[in-house]
Amino acid sequence: MTDLILKNVRPMGAPATDLNVTAGRFAESAAAGAETIDCGGRILIPGLVEAHTHLDKSLLGLPWYRNEVGPRLIDKIDNERAVKVSLGLDPRVQSERQALQSVAYGTTHIRSHVDVDTHHGLAGVEGVMATREKLAGIVDIEIVAFPQSGMITRPGTVELMDEALSMGVEVVGGLDPCGIDRDPRAHLDAIFGLAEKHGKPIDIHLHEQGALGWFSMEEILTRTRAHGMQGQVTVSHAFCLGAPDRAAVAALQEQLAEARIHIVTTAPASAPVPAVKELHALGILTGAGSDGIRDTWGPYGNGDMLERAMFVGLRNNLRRDDEVELALDICTAGGAAVMGLDGYGLAPGCHADAVLVEGETLAEAVALRAPRKLVLKGGRVTAQDGKCLTEAP
Amino acid sequence: MTDLILKNVRPMGAPATDLNVTAGRFAESAAAGAETIDCGGRILIPGLVEAHTHLDKSLLGLPWYRNEVGPRLIDKIDNERAVKVSLGLDPRVQSERQALQSVAYGTTHIRSHVDVDTHHGLAGVEGVMATREKLAGIVDIEIVAFPQSGMITRPGTVELMDEALSMGVEVVGGLDPCGIDRDPRAHLDAIFGLAEKHGKPIDIHLHEQGALGWFSMEEILTRTRAHGMQGQVTVSHAFCLGAPDRAAVAALQEQLAEARIHIVTTAPASAPVPAVKELHALGILTGAGSDGIRDTWGPYGNGDMLERAMFVGLRNNLRRDDEVELALDICTAGGAAVMGLDGYGLAPGCHADAVLVEGETLAEAVALRAPRKLVLKGGRVTAQDGKCLTEAP
Repeated sequence: MTDLILKNVRPMGAPATDLNVTAGRFAESAAAGAETIDCGGRILIPGLVEAHTHLDKSLLGLPWYRNEVGPRLIDKIDNERAVKVSLGLDPRVQSERQALQSVAYGTTHIRSHVDVDTHHGLAGVEGVMATREKLAGIVDIEIVAFPQSGMITRPGTVELMDEALSMGVEVVGGLDPCGIDRDPRAHLDAIFGLAEKHGKPIDIHLHEQGALGWFSMEEILTRTRAHGMQGQVTVSHAFCLGAPDRAAVAALQEQLAEARIHIVTTAPASAPVPAVKELHALGILTGAGSDGIRDTWGPYGNGDMLERAMFVGLRNNLRRDDEVELALDICTAGGAAVMGLDGYGLAPGCHADAVLVEGETLAEAVALRAPRKLVLKGGRVTAQDGKCLTEAP
Repeated sequence: MTDLILKNVRPMGAPATDLNVTAGRFAESAAAGAETIDCGGRILIPGLVEAHTHLDKSLLGLPWYRNEVGPRLIDKIDNERAVKVSLGLDPRVQSERQALQSVAYGTTHIRSHVDVDTHHGLAGVEGVMATREKLAGIVDIEIVAFPQSGMITRPGTVELMDEALSMGVEVVGGLDPCGIDRDPRAHLDAIFGLAEKHGKPIDIHLHEQGALGWFSMEEILTRTRAHGMQGQVTVSHAFCLGAPDRAAVAALQEQLAEARIHIVTTAPASAPVPAVKELHALGILTGAGSDGIRDTWGPYGNGDMLERAMFVGLRNNLRRDDEVELALDICTAGGAAVMGLDGYGLAPGCHADAVLVEGETLAEAVALRAPRKLVLKGGRVTAQDGKCLTEAP
């Protein structure tokens, strides 16, 4: 581990200064023999946090997949399970490809939902765990056991989730308790039961819109309180918080704040989304993610969380500089807070996970999305000039 | 003008072939002494068409503008008029900067709305006209006289619009007849009167949502029929076509199709938008544009119409390959049709305005948005490897 002096750097856009890195952490003073990196007056931000993606299912590096999938959620789920077989998708290889592409864009932490189902068993989890081990010191990967194909409708899935959690998966996943499993009570009881058994947090996909989503959200709230899991539950997507009835949403959001439930948004342009300024005003921790990147669900996405900050900004109509800074905060400190990361930031004592970005201000960095000059993970240079220093398979 | 043989090229993703360019146009056979360019099996698409932007107001190349503007449309309009003075914005320089950045991204045709108001007079029009002349042979620029600050509420504006049209501006602009001018009858009578007097088409900004927008749209329809201007009227933004009452929208869209009114969308993530698949099914010509690029309205935008195709895709939830191809078509042939361009396309006889893009398929080209390998305008190489060959001021 190299000790560093980052010369002529602007932490979060502040006036230029020098920062020290000692034994992988930011430090008050320079270590003897520290190597100097001239940062050319660029802005330094803490490592970007990818708080919602699917490392096991990207098609990066494969021939182009021609998408002819039907319009319903279930069409996409069924198609994906089949295509994984027909393409012989290897979750270990695919997760490594996507994770390293994210590193090139300055991501230092990833929370990945990974499919667990009775068709593919724990192959996805094993693959992403192998990548996590291989990329230790380059990017931190947290795994959510994700019952993408349903849990109650597919007997045996809960047992696989249980096994995944015993193997070292950190988070219990869930998915549309009404829309997919058609049995919200059984679905939510199962995931809260697993969380209690393993002492692990929850992150549940909730695409359900309007009143259906509010109902599921209320059931999540009830169980969060009953299990004393305040601060341990994240709802991803939460499209129902983007519903037009703002009075109903406001009442729900107050309860979410009180139960310290976190929200992760991917800021899709074509679905209702939680209003991030409202969440921020209520103190609800909010992160962001890329969701699937070039997979059987759709062709878009690249893992660039600076681009995602722009998407958060565009979707929430954030135009003022302070608003764009909020979008960036969601893609850095917000995601870190949702994931409960220790020692995140640029202060002395924090892990030296950081990115040098182009632009005169933080808002310009988001608007430009230029190749990242430098990416550090624990003080180690992992990417330079937009290129990851570790080669992908 | 160089004659060319484009070797090993895939027109619109078709199998690799050779294409000939003779005297600035695609040709059946190669000219004697034609220069050969190896296209490396890349896809060739016709030049990207920027069908809605504001060349006169970009802040590209200036120090970062810290946006602290209020939330209403009128806040942004009033702020901009003032900031143009305080920053000493030169429309000639700014339009050249933006136009050349667009060329780097493969744009060969631009329709630019240019502010006409009693404060700045025709300075914007004169500046963009100077740029149009300077960049002849590099990018075609069409100018819309745009009464950004209102026309009826600012006496003297109609006369300035009239003068702009006499000077060679090609299109009559308009803006929210109810929302800004508060007098839809006077506003629309004025712009249709100018169109009739000068024999020029109309392109009107319509941000008005829901029933208010429907009302204005109906008034536009009435005048389009009365003036026999079918096929000569474009409505930009048309947020009212994104309203939730799809039956009302469908009835209106049928009338738009019948009156051959065109639609241009910028596919904003935070506003209701016309559903491009519905427009396509009705045969309504549809183009797309970047809108303002890094201006006092907001920090986003870069002029990349391949990225805009992605925005159109994301906003309209276009995931299948054929759907993504529609998004790209809107950013190429669709915009060209709206603008009534002659000789647009890759067929023999068409102007050799074209772009070499990266990716195995058209959908991948949109998803990747990689730097453009080559941009041709009338057979002349104007950009290479993402860089414009003409230096910006």
